[in-house]
Amino acid sequence: MTITLNRLCVSTVMCYLRNILTFLFLAGIATASWAEQREFNLTIDEVAIEVAPGFTNKVFAFNGQVPGPLIHVKEGDDVMVHVSNNTTLPHTIHWHGINQTGSWQHDGVPGFTQEAIQPGESYTYKFNVDRPGSLWYHCHVDVWEHVAIRGMWGPIIVDPKNPSALEKEVTLDAILMLSTWQSPYASVYGKGGSPQDVSDYFSVNAKSFPFTQPIRVKKGDVLRMRFYGAGDETHQMHMHGHDMLITHKDGYPLASPYYVDTVPVGPGERYDVIVKMDNPGLFIMHDHVDKHMTNNGASMGGPMTVFEYEGVKMNDWYTWKNKVYDPNFFYSVSLTQGYGLFNSAPFMGKIVEQGKRRR
Amino acid sequence: MTITLNRLCVSTVMCYLRNILTFLFLAGIATASWAEQREFNLTIDEVAIEVAPGFTNKVFAFNGQVPGPLIHVKEGDDVMVHVSNNTTLPHTIHWHGINQTGSWQHDGVPGFTQEAIQPGESYTYKFNVDRPGSLWYHCHVDVWEHVAIRGMWGPIIVDPKNPSALEKEVTLDAILMLSTWQSPYASVYGKGGSPQDVSDYFSVNAKSFPFTQPIRVKKGDVLRMRFYGAGDETHQMHMHGHDMLITHKDGYPLASPYYVDTVPVGPGERYDVIVKMDNPGLFIMHDHVDKHMTNNGASMGGPMTVFEYEGVKMNDWYTWKNKVYDPNFFYSVSLTQGYGLFNSAPFMGKIVEQGKRRR
Amino acid sequence: MTITLNRLCVSTVMCYLRNILTFLFLAGIATASWAEQREFNLTIDEVAIEVAPGFTNKVFAFNGQVPGPLIHVKEGDDVMVHVSNNTTLPHTIHWHGINQTGSWQHDGVPGFTQEAIQPGESYTYKFNVDRPGSLWYHCHVDVWEHVAIRGMWGPIIVDPKNPSALEKEVTLDAILMLSTWQSPYASVYGKGGSPQDVSDYFSVNAKSFPFTQPIRVKKGDVLRMRFYGAGDETHQMHMHGHDMLITHKDGYPLASPYYVDTVPVGPGERYDVIVKMDNPGLFIMHDHVDKHMTNNGASMGGPMTVFEYEGVKMNDWYTWKNKVYDPNFFYSVSLTQGYGLFNSAPFMGKIVEQGKRRR
Repeated sequence: MTITLNRLCVSTVMCYLRNILTFLFLAGIATASWAEQREFNLTIDEVAIEVAPGFTNKVFAFNGQVPGPLIHVKEGDDVMVHVSNNTTLPHTIHWHGINQTGSWQHDGVPGFTQEAIQPGESYTYKFNVDRPGSLWYHCHVDVWEHVAIRGMWGPIIVDPKNPSALEKEVTLDAILMLSTWQSPYASVYGKGGSPQDVSDYFSVNAKSFPFTQPIRVKKGDVLRMRFYGAGDETHQMHMHGHDMLITHKDGYPLASPYYVDTVPVGPGERYDVIVKMDNPGLFIMHDHVDKHMTNNGASMGGPMTVFEYEGVKMNDWYTWKNKVYDPNFFYSVSLTQGYGLFNSAPFMGKIVEQGKRRR
Repeated sequence: MTITLNRLCVSTVMCYLRNILTFLFLAGIATASWAEQREFNLTIDEVAIEVAPGFTNKVFAFNGQVPGPLIHVKEGDDVMVHVSNNTTLPHTIHWHGINQTGSWQHDGVPGFTQEAIQPGESYTYKFNVDRPGSLWYHCHVDVWEHVAIRGMWGPIIVDPKNPSALEKEVTLDAILMLSTWQSPYASVYGKGGSPQDVSDYFSVNAKSFPFTQPIRVKKGDVLRMRFYGAGDETHQMHMHGHDMLITHKDGYPLASPYYVDTVPVGPGERYDVIVKMDNPGLFIMHDHVDKHMTNNGASMGGPMTVFEYEGVKMNDWYTWKNKVYDPNFFYSVSLTQGYGLFNSAPFMGKIVEQGKRRR
Repeated sequence: MTITLNRLCVSTVMCYLRNILTFLFLAGIATASWAEQREFNLTIDEVAIEVAPGFTNKVFAFNGQVPGPLIHVKEGDDVMVHVSNNTTLPHTIHWHGINQTGSWQHDGVPGFTQEAIQPGESYTYKFNVDRPGSLWYHCHVDVWEHVAIRGMWGPIIVDPKNPSALEKEVTLDAILMLSTWQSPYASVYGKGGSPQDVSDYFSVNAKSFPFTQPIRVKKGDVLRMRFYGAGDETHQMHMHGHDMLITHKDGYPLASPYYVDTVPVGPGERYDVIVKMDNPGLFIMHDHVDKHMTNNGASMGGPMTVFEYEGVKMNDWYTWKNKVYDPNFFYSVSLTQGYGLFNSAPFMGKIVEQGKRRR
């Protein structure tokens, strides 16, 4: 459109006309349309995060955090993202679930849709968001390391133009990105993720129990949880005490939703579940892959949370009785704050010093 | 109730009265109510079971057996279970699929809903069964060892108040609990199940082929199989010669059942399938994860069975030609015997001697 | 029909009438019928295939190729297959998805439905194909080696009598058989596939990137892809830029198809997806199990392809700019050539010399 209009601008009169046309065109977008232009910045930095007690891992972190910042937009929005690679290795960003209609060059696959973004370089992605749902973004360079064990992923939530009646009932939202870690490579960039390597820590939103957080609810809440298979193994998320209705697969609504108490979430997949919180108490949710419930075999750990109902008395021996609560650990607060890109301080890592960057 | 009434029986007249009261009480159950009170006892013992030829594993066994006894109740029943821990390590019981409506303290999660049951101690769980389907119970302490490789699980079948037309057609029921073993820890309590450990035996109802059993059917049978992911890996159950209709996931009926010939059963999950047995012959069913079909790489093994139709002639070379048949290996007999808790002698292990308990 | 007609037979005249009606009815079936007799030959040979650059694996190959030849038939056909075992180990063929109605002895399970076909011996399988869909054939002897890491599998496509409206729209067909390899056993027949062994190469149609091929399409194509879990791990196939509609599971049509961008394909399973190719560009599809995207940890590899739309300009840095294209890599050409058995020269291996056969 802009290009077409610019061609009109060959004389002053025509330029004036162009400006009027441009104004009317943009005004038309503003009044007649839900779609908006969104412009975001993402850096990629080398930082270290503490995944579990005593276990710190060097990561490539979007805006310095793992998981990456929430990108919250609406179906139909035009999005522009400026990416700066401040790390020592090349990267790209693939926008998983964005169909890139008419914009395949922005799909983020090195050697196929673009050349990788080299250390110190920047790149701008532009695309229209024509698919609603639970999407995400992640690096597409050396995925067995960068995605599987270096935390290069973050959520994109695209609100649908026409949510279902059940979706409209949701009172509380949570995002749960499940992933894997390999402690032998925790401090060695450029290695790990080979078929012979063994993942030994497992996490939700990059933390293993007891570093995870509860989900505080009240009776009557309608909770939507969006599970992401962000790492390299399948997680079997089992919620106690409630019926989970699977409503979406990979962001697509199911014609025939179904109830489960255990949802298998494999690498790359997303499952949305909606749960009526009608059973006050303290109920846990955890990965039913038993070995995922330890931190490197040494103690109880892994992707686990507790649903803490308002008003339920906690016993003295309750493990999280004195837990310092972060209401945004599952992005629940950010998701209520309109559209945009939302950084999250608690997910920030500590900058890896230059001299210590390389092995 | 019975105990209370028995206390009345201190004279002939009172005994007569008791009998009349008992009759009226039981008649009342029959006419006015479907829900009942059920009271069960479970011990946890240290025994050793022979999983495969030459492979014996120390387990923590409910009532001395693996899998644990069948608990068969009706939707709406009130259940009380007295648990005695006769082992050297702490345990709890989580009732997987029971929603614990109003009874979250009975959910069986150590440090969250209760303190673990210490060696020598007892504990009583009470809950209402308000969800029908294929449920189960398992320990929730150190699950990577106790659930993944020590056999601490058993089935709970909750009959629905309103079964579907297809469910009413079922003529034969089978329960198949799939799981994993790690022979390096077979005789060492308190170890195993870490991310680095490798499962090397795979079983259905705690036996690997050839220790498994056939399922004997006749043409016209409608067979329901309930698959449980009780161990730590996903099993891909492939039935030969028949169409399996998946009707339930985790005990919940599917709005849109679908046919498969291979059903993936991950840790924590249950799938009910209903199969019209209309193809006389000898057809096997097995895990299609190929490595699961060996016993520690040494020979053919794993979770496998054969559907043996009545009247089919067995060849001389048929592997199970002289098999000693146990019609209750898949709980098929117990499931026809009304409601209650059903121990199963063939699943019983041998008591581990005290002096040999610890490594 | 027969029952209804039998009710007519209450007098001699009526019985005569019934017989005429029965004859006409059966004649109608015979003249209007679509079923045919098909007779095929399969050898099993010891050959070596190059799976990835620098990685050659000894296999047991049907007609000398991996994957095996396409068998393309129609629902209702009668099939006869003569098998000759030219290898040094015993084999059978199981026809995965063929129900073997009335022909259980042809199900191909050694020790259960037949004795294994010894080296140098032949065997003939006969069965009716009464189930349409994406079926396959594979060895059933020592599956942890022969199926998991020796390539003993090939596709059977059975066209349905009554395809759905959407199936009729398909303009391009592709078969993708996903599998695993273990390089330590690449040249050692009779070993590998144990629970402790680690798969280190991953492939589609027995090739790892960059030895895989693109799928060339034009805008408006309706592409059906049939994914097969032929090896020993679950693959998470993620297609970029398009909506995949899962229409069939294990060859059975789903009553409620659903969209995904990532389809989990476990061992033994098949998923049919139909995709409207409406987004010109270069979009990749790959396994989202990150470790599957390397060739033994050394470089980018694994089961990957690119959808290359007609007319899209390729950049100079495009990885496959000078790729020699094989339009039949996904059996797309063979599938347009009517019914029969279709060998595929590019899948042929090199004969293993007798003296080098044994370790």
